[in-house]
Amino acid sequence: MNILEIIEKKRNGKVLSKDEIEFFINGYTNNEIPDYQASSLIMAIFIKGMTKQETTDLTLAMAHSGEILDLSKLNKTIVDKHSSGGVGDKVSLILLPLVASLGVPVAKMSGRGLGFTGGTIDKLESIPGYKTTLSVDKFINNVNEIGISLIAQTMNLAPADKKLYALRDSTACIESIPLIASSIMSKKIASGAQKIVLDITVGSGAFMKDIESATKLAEEMIEIGKLANRETVCILTNMDEPLGWAVGNTLEVIEAINFLKGNMPEDLKQVVLELGAYMMKLSNLGENIEENKKKMLQNIENGKAYRKFIELVKMQEGDISYIENTDKFEKAKYGIPIISKKEGYINRIDASKIGKIACYLGAGRIKKEDKIDYTVGIILDKKVSEKVKEKEIIGYIYANDQEKSKKALEQIEKIIEIDNVKPKKLDTILKIIK
Amino acid sequence: MNILEIIEKKRNGKVLSKDEIEFFINGYTNNEIPDYQASSLIMAIFIKGMTKQETTDLTLAMAHSGEILDLSKLNKTIVDKHSSGGVGDKVSLILLPLVASLGVPVAKMSGRGLGFTGGTIDKLESIPGYKTTLSVDKFINNVNEIGISLIAQTMNLAPADKKLYALRDSTACIESIPLIASSIMSKKIASGAQKIVLDITVGSGAFMKDIESATKLAEEMIEIGKLANRETVCILTNMDEPLGWAVGNTLEVIEAINFLKGNMPEDLKQVVLELGAYMMKLSNLGENIEENKKKMLQNIENGKAYRKFIELVKMQEGDISYIENTDKFEKAKYGIPIISKKEGYINRIDASKIGKIACYLGAGRIKKEDKIDYTVGIILDKKVSEKVKEKEIIGYIYANDQEKSKKALEQIEKIIEIDNVKPKKLDTILKIIK
Repeated sequence: MNILEIIEKKRNGKVLSKDEIEFFINGYTNNEIPDYQASSLIMAIFIKGMTKQETTDLTLAMAHSGEILDLSKLNKTIVDKHSSGGVGDKVSLILLPLVASLGVPVAKMSGRGLGFTGGTIDKLESIPGYKTTLSVDKFINNVNEIGISLIAQTMNLAPADKKLYALRDSTACIESIPLIASSIMSKKIASGAQKIVLDITVGSGAFMKDIESATKLAEEMIEIGKLANRETVCILTNMDEPLGWAVGNTLEVIEAINFLKGNMPEDLKQVVLELGAYMMKLSNLGENIEENKKKMLQNIENGKAYRKFIELVKMQEGDISYIENTDKFEKAKYGIPIISKKEGYINRIDASKIGKIACYLGAGRIKKEDKIDYTVGIILDKKVSEKVKEKEIIGYIYANDQEKSKKALEQIEKIIEIDNVKPKKLDTILKIIK
Repeated sequence: MNILEIIEKKRNGKVLSKDEIEFFINGYTNNEIPDYQASSLIMAIFIKGMTKQETTDLTLAMAHSGEILDLSKLNKTIVDKHSSGGVGDKVSLILLPLVASLGVPVAKMSGRGLGFTGGTIDKLESIPGYKTTLSVDKFINNVNEIGISLIAQTMNLAPADKKLYALRDSTACIESIPLIASSIMSKKIASGAQKIVLDITVGSGAFMKDIESATKLAEEMIEIGKLANRETVCILTNMDEPLGWAVGNTLEVIEAINFLKGNMPEDLKQVVLELGAYMMKLSNLGENIEENKKKMLQNIENGKAYRKFIELVKMQEGDISYIENTDKFEKAKYGIPIISKKEGYINRIDASKIGKIACYLGAGRIKKEDKIDYTVGIILDKKVSEKVKEKEIIGYIYANDQEKSKKALEQIEKIIEIDNVKPKKLDTILKIIK
């Protein structure tokens, strides 16, 4: 077997065998196959596609290219959750303590964010003292003790995926269903997931711009899940406008805390309940989705979800006084109101554009090495289809640089479109595929 | 403009503009675009194809990526000749002095060979003293003085083509019509050709395995020729069995000298006459192809072609006593007869397999750095469709290593297929496309 034969085969639209895919992934991970051969094969895969079996073989080869997190000591079914990302996406911060409070074991290693804002780990690190790098033993002990632990990806999980993703990014080969699907699923499998609930975001702020392509991606991942013996459920959610009210790291942590105390933006609430209900179902904690949702709302009302979050932060040495009094969080220097220029209905708030402004203010990374400013971001008091009066405050920009705050305000005034006619509000939960 | 947009465009099957193609070729030649992006684009081109205009733009961009040989001082129409290569292909050694003796100006820079045997330059270097590296001024002076000069490619001609060819070779992207066509044509244009006669070899010993794909390649190059204002004629010739009798560097030089003295194998004669007749026509030295062929045969008979060869060798400081007495050439240590094991007709002599044995004996290079053994090779006294008796000598193996000569003999006895039925002899000239 040699790489030229493999490239030629895929170039001609033939199906690669498991052995050939493993030969490629192992050779590429060990630097025996150079980038220029890998990019050639990846382009051939992009154009010619892959069968479900090939995609599964690629997924498993990438998952096994490095360490695999062994969660067998927990002796429980581990249901992992993943989102294909968006703007204002603080779902994990809320959802995971909430389902943990209902008995779903949560042992989650997360990556850091690239793009609009930080990832879950960056957001947790905005809580003073919170340790995101625990040993695997401590991590597993925490899950055994309180049912939840959230740490950064400290192990060398799916290094082939990391390397291939960077290569795809610099060769215009990102938007391929088999390549996206195998990338996501390989990381989940490497981090020990036995069942998976996927939040596939759809719209301007997401990878997938329309329901059709999101459906294809979902079906691909469900098929991989079947072939790889990892039951998978996909929930397509709307990411045309930012999720919830807050965009920015500390701002989102505070929104998450408020949510767990009962102050729930409608769209965020729907996403959290839908994902959580399926996590419970896959964990064998309730067959009926609507019943599961009710139980989740109960645990918000009775404070159990909030207390689980406090427990989590405490266990990972975070300062819980910040959770108990969110006024303690460091604030950005400038808080500039966004004022409506006319009366009408909010017609559109392009999530992608809001995300880019948050990143420009310092909330996200462009390069891996960039430092995140936890305090900056945007709060949207009004969401799409809501009515605003002239000169009413629609939201706030939080910035540490006056020049940047001015430019951000100018842009944001254009992004928030106001019209006379009330727009049809899009559903938040677009489709469930299982 | 950036390379990612260009890759994405071709990936989606769109047509690249002249500017985009130049941006890629210039960036790649200057090492600003890395191999892994180039190989990604090349694979997209391989799969999605190129329009004739794109292929022409690629050809011209590669031709202008380095120096261009300026032959304007010659003040004559320069008709270049190129062969897509084969086994036993000594056509240039014969054809060029022959047409020069009829007034076609020959100013040719050739590459060295990779594969079966050496190239024209390697073969010329097997003549003691022959200088293949002249200054461009001396080169042009020689053409002015005696009408012919043959030297090695000393200038930096079409470096983009060189770099891309190596990349294609290591990413399974050789067999693409637009990429092969642009590679050949860019080198011809960079070496100053105004009109071009192409010998497209077809069969086991050639790049193109069948007439259909050779026709496509020919049509592509003729179209490039039109768009780039370089009139081009393509002659498809049979390369299923080796051309002529000799395979090996010195052996082929001797065959060429004998040819010029009138001892002409039939297939080689047909190829030389057809190519030469079109070179004369494009040089405005005769409209009628059959008339041109007659003039060529006259110059063989009257010795003018042979004397032109002597003149060429003398002018480039080669020792003409070797030409006048070919017994002076160094011979291989072992000359082993190939004996027929049965009576019958020669049914097949696979050119590719014969070429590989010649290379194994030392006549060709596998890597650029390999040294060629001029003396080794194979002589085939009998060709396809000829009758042989049992124990008759079919040919000879010339080797400097006894072990290798034995192995070569074993293999060659299998390669030369003998059958009871006389096979249909394939035409040598398969098709002329202009």
